[in-house]
Order: sequence, then C-alpha cells, then structure tokens
Amino acid sequence: MRYKLTIEYDGGPFQGWQRLADGPSVQGALEEAVFKLTGEGADVIGAGRTDAGVHARGQVAHVDISKPFDGWKLCEALNAHLRPHPIAVLSAEVAPSEFHARFSAVMRTYRYRIINRRAPLTFDRGRAWRVGRELDCGAIGEAAKRLLGQHDFTSFRDSQCQSRSPIKTLDRAEVVRSGDEVTLWFEARSFLHRQVRSMVGTLVEVGLGRMNADDLASALAAADRARCGPVAPADGLYLERVCY
Amino acid sequence: MRYKLTIEYDGGPFQGWQRLADGPSVQGALEEAVFKLTGEGADVIGAGRTDAGVHARGQVAHVDISKPFDGWKLCEALNAHLRPHPIAVLSAEVAPSEFHARFSAVMRTYRYRIINRRAPLTFDRGRAWRVGRELDCGAIGEAAKRLLGQHDFTSFRDSQCQSRSPIKTLDRAEVVRSGDEVTLWFEARSFLHRQVRSMVGTLVEVGLGRMNADDLASALAAADRARCGPVAPADGLYLERVCY
Repeated sequence: MRYKLTIEYDGGPFQGWQRLADGPSVQGALEEAVFKLTGEGADVIGAGRTDAGVHARGQVAHVDISKPFDGWKLCEALNAHLRPHPIAVLSAEVAPSEFHARFSAVMRTYRYRIINRRAPLTFDRGRAWRVGRELDCGAIGEAAKRLLGQHDFTSFRDSQCQSRSPIKTLDRAEVVRSGDEVTLWFEARSFLHRQVRSMVGTLVEVGLGRMNADDLASALAAADRARCGPVAPADGLYLERVCY
Repeated sequence: MRYKLTIEYDGGPFQGWQRLADGPSVQGALEEAVFKLTGEGADVIGAGRTDAGVHARGQVAHVDISKPFDGWKLCEALNAHLRPHPIAVLSAEVAPSEFHARFSAVMRTYRYRIINRRAPLTFDRGRAWRVGRELDCGAIGEAAKRLLGQHDFTSFRDSQCQSRSPIKTLDRAEVVRSGDEVTLWFEARSFLHRQVRSMVGTLVEVGLGRMNADDLASALAAADRARCGPVAPADGLYLERVCY
C-alpha cells in the first residue's frame, strides 16, 4: 500500500532531506521510523530534497508499506518512533499506487523568513535570516515581479544543480512585511537547486539599495551565475506546501 | 545614569529571570554583560520575575550605570556581551532617576501560546503547550470573560506567592484561534505568582469540556487553591509588553 505523508521539520540538526552515507538526514530518520514500526526497509521519497538547515512546514513524501494501516494510526505510530527528532508527521493517508511525491507535484510553495532588525535573534535563531540594515520592501516587491514567468534561471542556479533544463516558470514572487518580519513567497511547479536562496540573496541586495529592479532583470537575462547576489542562508527557508 | 532596557529572551535555558546562587538566570546574564562592558557591578531590575522556562518578547528592566552611553550604543554593546545567550536587548534609553521597571509599571501583557494538534511540536518545542484534543475556543472565550475585573484570585495563586494581597484587577482575558494555534491574552497592572498559568490550565479544562464557565466562576469565587485546574506548562508563556 502506498501512503502519502505530510511532514514538518526543523532542518537545523540535519544534513538535509536526503539520506547520506553518514550524518543525520530527515529521510534517514523517517526510514528508520518506518523500519521500527513495520520491520520493512522502505524508501521514503520526498517532493523536495531540502538542503542542510532548510526547514519544512509541508513537505510531502510517499512510502510503500505492505502492512495495511489506518492513516491516523500510521501518523501516530511514526511520530512515536521519530522521537526525539524535530520531525512531525502531520498527516498520513492511503494514496493511489501511481502517486509519486516528487513527480506528481504540480506546485511547490517556499517561504523565506527575514527578521529585519539590529538585535540578535533569540526565538528565531536558525529559523530566519537576520538582516540588520533597513530593507526597502517596496523595492524588493518591484524587483521580485521581474522574476515572474518563464525564464532561463541560470543566474540563480547552484553549480551542483542536476536539473536537465535551467528554464523554469515562476508563478509567485511576493514580499510581505509585518513589523520587523519580512516574508518572501515563491511558487513554481519546480525549482532549480538553491534557486530560492539565490533569488532571495539578490532581492536583499535590492532591498539594501545596492541593486535596483533593472539590475536584477539584467542579471536574470544574462543567464550567468556570476551575476547572482550572495546566496541567502539556509536558516530562513521553509518548504511550505506541495500541491498535486 | 538610569537606563530603561527592553529585552527579549527564550526562557528555555534559564532557571528564570531572577539571579540565584547557582544556575543560569536572565538577570544574571544581563548583569554579567553590564559588568563586562562597564566594570560596574550593577543590579538589573526587571518588571516581571518570570519563572523557569517562561519567555519574554518585551520584558523591561532598569539599570544604573555611571558611565554615560548613547542608547543605541549601549544596546549594541550589551548584545555583543550577551552572546551566546538567547537574550537580546531590543532597545536602551536614558530614563528619569525615579523610573522603576517594576514599581512604575501600570500594565503588563502576557500571551500564552497553545498548539492544538495531535502531532508533536518541532519549531515550537519549548515555546508552546501542545494540547492534543480539540479545544472549544468559544467556551474558553466565554469562561475567560468571568475572570475580568477585580477579584480575589487566591484560586489561581501559587502557594509560594509573595504578593501582599490576592486581590487583582484583570483588564483583558481573550482567546484568539488561528489555524491550530490558540493564543490567550491577559492584561493587568500586576499578577499573582503563576496566576496566568493557573488561569490557562483551568481555561483549557473548559476548552476540553471538563468544566464550564459557571464551574470556573465558582472556582474563582471559592478563593481556594484546590479548585484550580492543572497549572499550564511554562513553555507557552510570554511576557509580551510592559506599559508605564
């Protein structure tokens, strides 16, 4: 039976989603929980292979388990076996056998959290990027619009990216300010490796007045990695939602 | 010169606000930072002596330092000396010599965060109380209104409380639900020891259907500690704001 899991995690203690030869991973912790519960060595396949330190509020994964489970009970049992990892299975449900967490996804939503203040972070340490100088969110919003639509995103692509094509379609690029918290929202069917953190790093350059919207548009058009601003830290990035 | 400090901290690693013979305290960490900066052994007096594990978003304190400082520079310097504690001085300003963080306060606002879901906490571990069974927030809101105004709050007072009188006036008792997050807000000139956590524990009994608003009102009227529900954990409590 195939199950669809919706998962939340604090990426801080992990080397990332993906199971590695050594070092803790979210996938590894989930597969261990499945094994403890069922005695089966199943692969847990996620929608997004988040990097080290990147968080998720709504990662989706699928796993095949031969023993039939009620969704609610599977969820409870996995959570019991996941302790003390900061990983929670929010829901588990039976999925059709053709459901694939990664390939069936039609939309991914990422959120990037910035705390725009001088004072060091307390509660949000490791959970947001602190930017000490005042950000111009109007300028960020204007520049973000230039990223919308279909583009060759080579300028915002990590050199390790394994995607076949650098051409992606960005459906949402929005900035919302609430007090000293600045949230950037991005939606697309799929993203290149480190695309969101690369875009955020460059948008923050705009917010600090070091670039303007035209500079960002020409960096995008150049399709040249060297034109990207500094990549934003993993701390602020959250895989928020995956739609099918 | 007297300075007024506004302070944020994650109470998790501390035995509470108050300096103790041993064990880490927020007051102790602040006094150490002042000493490192000035060489002066000054007392840092807070508006609220938060318990072990209780957090603050807007604790206020005063401290006397003979060396004159620009507020902004004092703030930056204290934050530098506070590392790596999860304590941040949000602002520092010169205050009149008669200003007293504790005795001059005219209103204190506390927030209590509950995450109402089955799944274990990840990001909010130690920062909220997870209540697994569905809470009826309408019932909590109705019951909370019965606590408003001037009452003898003995039923919601810790046995260790040193307050001269158990009579306090509660100006705000509100519940706000947003998704699975339930926030309770309380405002009063001052509170008894553990009053907020005692009220929250009893209100949650109401939200779970184990008590109703009349039961809560009669528990209050009884002025009997034995009538209080279980005291809510420290994790969810935040000293949000102090007004002068």
